[in-house]
Amino acid sequence: MHDLFDPGPFDRMWDELLPLGRAPRTGGYRRFAWTATDHDLRAWFAAEAQRRGLDLTTDRAGNQWAWWGSPDAGPAVAIGSHLDSVPDGGAFDGPLGVVSALAAVDLLRARGFSPSRPVVVANFGDEEGARFGIACAGSRLITGALPADRARALADADGVTMAQAMNRAGLDVEAVNADPETLARIGCFVELHVEQGRGLVDLGQPVAVGSAIWPHGRWRLDLAGEANHAGTTRLDDRNDPMLAAARLVLAAREAAQRHSSVATVGKLAVVPNGVNAIPSAVTAWLDARGPAPDRVRALVAELAAVAGEQGGSLAEESWTDETAFDPGLLGRLRAVLPAAPVLATGAGHDAGILANAGIPAAMLFVRNPTGISHSPAEHAELADCHEGVRALARVVAELAGPAPA
Amino acid sequence: MHDLFDPGPFDRMWDELLPLGRAPRTGGYRRFAWTATDHDLRAWFAAEAQRRGLDLTTDRAGNQWAWWGSPDAGPAVAIGSHLDSVPDGGAFDGPLGVVSALAAVDLLRARGFSPSRPVVVANFGDEEGARFGIACAGSRLITGALPADRARALADADGVTMAQAMNRAGLDVEAVNADPETLARIGCFVELHVEQGRGLVDLGQPVAVGSAIWPHGRWRLDLAGEANHAGTTRLDDRNDPMLAAARLVLAAREAAQRHSSVATVGKLAVVPNGVNAIPSAVTAWLDARGPAPDRVRALVAELAAVAGEQGGSLAEESWTDETAFDPGLLGRLRAVLPAAPVLATGAGHDAGILANAGIPAAMLFVRNPTGISHSPAEHAELADCHEGVRALARVVAELAGPAPA
Repeated sequence: MHDLFDPGPFDRMWDELLPLGRAPRTGGYRRFAWTATDHDLRAWFAAEAQRRGLDLTTDRAGNQWAWWGSPDAGPAVAIGSHLDSVPDGGAFDGPLGVVSALAAVDLLRARGFSPSRPVVVANFGDEEGARFGIACAGSRLITGALPADRARALADADGVTMAQAMNRAGLDVEAVNADPETLARIGCFVELHVEQGRGLVDLGQPVAVGSAIWPHGRWRLDLAGEANHAGTTRLDDRNDPMLAAARLVLAAREAAQRHSSVATVGKLAVVPNGVNAIPSAVTAWLDARGPAPDRVRALVAELAAVAGEQGGSLAEESWTDETAFDPGLLGRLRAVLPAAPVLATGAGHDAGILANAGIPAAMLFVRNPTGISHSPAEHAELADCHEGVRALARVVAELAGPAPA
Repeated sequence: MHDLFDPGPFDRMWDELLPLGRAPRTGGYRRFAWTATDHDLRAWFAAEAQRRGLDLTTDRAGNQWAWWGSPDAGPAVAIGSHLDSVPDGGAFDGPLGVVSALAAVDLLRARGFSPSRPVVVANFGDEEGARFGIACAGSRLITGALPADRARALADADGVTMAQAMNRAGLDVEAVNADPETLARIGCFVELHVEQGRGLVDLGQPVAVGSAIWPHGRWRLDLAGEANHAGTTRLDDRNDPMLAAARLVLAAREAAQRHSSVATVGKLAVVPNGVNAIPSAVTAWLDARGPAPDRVRALVAELAAVAGEQGGSLAEESWTDETAFDPGLLGRLRAVLPAAPVLATGAGHDAGILANAGIPAAMLFVRNPTGISHSPAEHAELADCHEGVRALARVVAELAGPAPA
């Protein structure tokens, strides 16, 4: 099988994607939902489908599906990932899964493989939630986990709603909704992804099977104060929400440590954000995850109490419970990839959203030499990426091959 | 004298300025240097000068001067302030001084006062430094306290340099420089300003004489970390600059308390500022002031040490030493305003910059019922504003009247 793998298509696709949405100053990516860059990425995906003679469909949330075989010829084996990024993200988180899925189709065809059920490559929209604040918006919409009316009303930092942004991008905004027709076509979903930690480095393996996704969520901490002059307002007369924000940042770290979880304040909005003005308000966003829901819930409850003591409030923006991938599907992946370790992850993925909607799902992870992700420094060696394509092709051959006698 | 005061012109000017640069959402002002709003404010000032037959001159930094009498007829009595604002600032900080100066000219003329030396109303540009980070840029430029080459190279948040912004606004950028010819025309400067604390409220007086400006400065705290995924990076593997920023915010408050000074972190820049990304860098700006330079210096030195412990650095962006206003000038103000209390302030002003350049300067403060400033809630009662005009007219009559026999 290795002999038939031609790395050319993978490498060509990778090189074509590299310049799209790259910020010159940081070298990181700014591929946000329903922007001009997002449009270019979707056009690229459509062209790759056409190049292979795969029929392209777009579901009610704008997610793209490239079909090898008729969409109505029985429950499909879906593979793929997403093309959008966090602010100043890396090149691999998302695109590696899409490019590897297309390359796996190429490899299976080169081997003369004839699927007994449809194989479909997915490009999920808005996985990172970088613009509108809800991660996995594309898959949450079609499964109904994100109600369409709520999605349409979400606004970005400039006040543009998701409805307006979708409309400008040419999507039929009124048709956005849960999409049971699309879901009914998907028999299972396997998402390949760059690893976002150092598990595979420690184990000396290029590819892992993903077993579970930690429970995780996002919360908004609103801290109100009183705008005033930084030079003339006595310390005792101040109501400075920056102090409350600082206490919460430190409390989040301390609580995460105690609950064996992780907690991050990666985003702040300060109003008015002037050097010589005591802020009138600070909003901090908390990202918290852990190996068990009760640990994360306990951590967040403590921070809500701290926020309350500071006169602030905490509001949940999203919550995804622990996702244990389908045991039957996992068993088949482990059978065809016997050398691959089995790892859980703290990152949310579209595979988790589909799993929670009852579609058997699983993941493959490709080794990340530094473990760094969501950063321009995110990396995977090309040889490991190629190994990922081979592993994914083995998985598809197993899942879409002739039914066992 | 009170009988001759017609509040009409003051009230008209005030009403005309109210809509300029007002942000609809907050009700605060966003009057930043060399923007379209700034242009409108300058055009308004020029029209008010023309309405009164005052000759308008513009100095090498773009500050505007409206002359009652020939600029070359001896050292002038300068009054006025600035029209720009902090982000979401109030209506009074700056404009009250400009409008009161013009109204004082009207009142003196109504009284038939004939000045024995020129009187000039100043509109200083870019006093707040909201766009390019340097407060009192207009007065610092003409006194040489801010070198022209450094000013031209300053960049705003969008990367636009002050040179580019000045050029777009029509100023001769190459001519920007220290301006000894303009300074030589100014015999003294009295700046009327809304009070930015509760001193006059406590004392039950509408107007105070300003005696001194606290030493004050701005410092930039650069904290570098390592961007990484918020869900998959173990706490021990993190280098999160948000934690360092939080520790510095709290340390600044604690140190200010110990040194009987004030310290504020009112502005933060987080990179990339994504909910699920550990930041790669956080920059925090520190504003610190106090009743004596050694206290402020000690406070800042402690924070530099804390920043160093966190792997960060602290850089001075501006420093203005303590400014004690001219004793002779203060004596004359106190003589004509015997009921006015004498107050020091923690806020920097153009009057302080001119004083440090050797021009006798002083200030008048108008009561602020809440003490709030640099906020949409900043306020002064109209009756107190009118009292400020009367006080300023008395001061000008004293300073520009016939020489005592």
